[in-house]
Amino acid sequence: MADAVVLLSGGIDSSTALAIAIRSGHCCHALTFRYGQRHELEVEAAGRIARTLGAADHRIIAIPLGELGGSTLTDRSAPVPRGREPEEMARQIPSTYVPARNTIFLAYALAVAEITRSDFIYLGVSAVDYSGYPDCRPEYVEAFKDLAALATRRAVEGWPPQIVAPLLHLSKAQIIRKGIQLAVDYSLTLSCYDPDEAGRACGHCDSCLLRRRGFSEAGLPDPAVYQPGPER
Amino acid sequence: MADAVVLLSGGIDSSTALAIAIRSGHCCHALTFRYGQRHELEVEAAGRIARTLGAADHRIIAIPLGELGGSTLTDRSAPVPRGREPEEMARQIPSTYVPARNTIFLAYALAVAEITRSDFIYLGVSAVDYSGYPDCRPEYVEAFKDLAALATRRAVEGWPPQIVAPLLHLSKAQIIRKGIQLAVDYSLTLSCYDPDEAGRACGHCDSCLLRRRGFSEAGLPDPAVYQPGPER
Repeated sequence: MADAVVLLSGGIDSSTALAIAIRSGHCCHALTFRYGQRHELEVEAAGRIARTLGAADHRIIAIPLGELGGSTLTDRSAPVPRGREPEEMARQIPSTYVPARNTIFLAYALAVAEITRSDFIYLGVSAVDYSGYPDCRPEYVEAFKDLAALATRRAVEGWPPQIVAPLLHLSKAQIIRKGIQLAVDYSLTLSCYDPDEAGRACGHCDSCLLRRRGFSEAGLPDPAVYQPGPER
Repeated sequence: MADAVVLLSGGIDSSTALAIAIRSGHCCHALTFRYGQRHELEVEAAGRIARTLGAADHRIIAIPLGELGGSTLTDRSAPVPRGREPEEMARQIPSTYVPARNTIFLAYALAVAEITRSDFIYLGVSAVDYSGYPDCRPEYVEAFKDLAALATRRAVEGWPPQIVAPLLHLSKAQIIRKGIQLAVDYSLTLSCYDPDEAGRACGHCDSCLLRRRGFSEAGLPDPAVYQPGPER
């Protein structure tokens, strides 16, 4: 079976995308970035997921994206937004947006696909229950597909990597149900943008809110461990 | 005037692109990568060029691209091709090709453009006198333009960065003549893929051959310092 590069952050979506790629029979090269994110603990979660689901290997690439600035996700001196309503998420790109992050991740994925001779690149973006990031939208994914068809030696030689975004039109609840079918252990994932040192989730950032709502809508218990607070 | 991000390697093409961007009146943010290239001395050349031409600032970003492998340009244990004829360069992608390099560089340029609120991104690729790299071709640049129009917050807000490749259809001789008009001091540039420790060029790699032929066709002396050898 063909090899696939899978972008793996350690959250629900990318873990489910990895499970789908593996179930599709691919030999999967998981790819995670340490980019100065405040929730760097997600890199450990990605390692647990890659091992548990059976990725062939797991590359962790350290890149100085946070140093460029422009995001509360990489600037620990600024708070991340909390308590945003779904309508607000759909309307306004939040301060946790990291400039050009998915383009940078996908560009590295192109390089890894070239080196591993992978015919597929999986990414777990969803444009349904999401934070309004520009580089998670279907039209963005389409544009990257067109670029990938031209960008590399393998593309020129007739083997352009196919960009696969299997969750693009799924709600968080649908993603979770699919992952459960594929035996993803979501207790190993980390979604929170602002976990404490013990790795407990804040429960109120966009990512926690989307996760909690997803499990609720799926009618399933959320195995994440949350920090104690007034709401629980 | 609008700000511009300019990808600057320290060679002839990107230095000329910077001169064109500055002459166009842009406030220029030069961007150079230390990516494990064997000719890392080009980063110093880029610094000299950025200062001399008057870039507003110069970011040098260190990225672990060489560690991924797949190129003799980042693997010092393998030789770079020497003495290739123009026809061969046009026909065959050489081992100095670095997987997805321009896509990675342009992805970072998108991030810097977002942070600096730049409306333009300049890159000095040419598809005339070049080594046959897939990510220097006009169709590749077009595809990246389409991606850039969708990828960032500023794009969504109505300010997509314009990708400008002013040298795309120029020969090396034409590029050099243009640079001379704009007072680029080519003695400050480094083209060679395999310079010695003193920074002297090998004279025989693709990049040296293209440079030497360019100056010859332009009828101008090449100010590069070459290593002593049988041919000079």
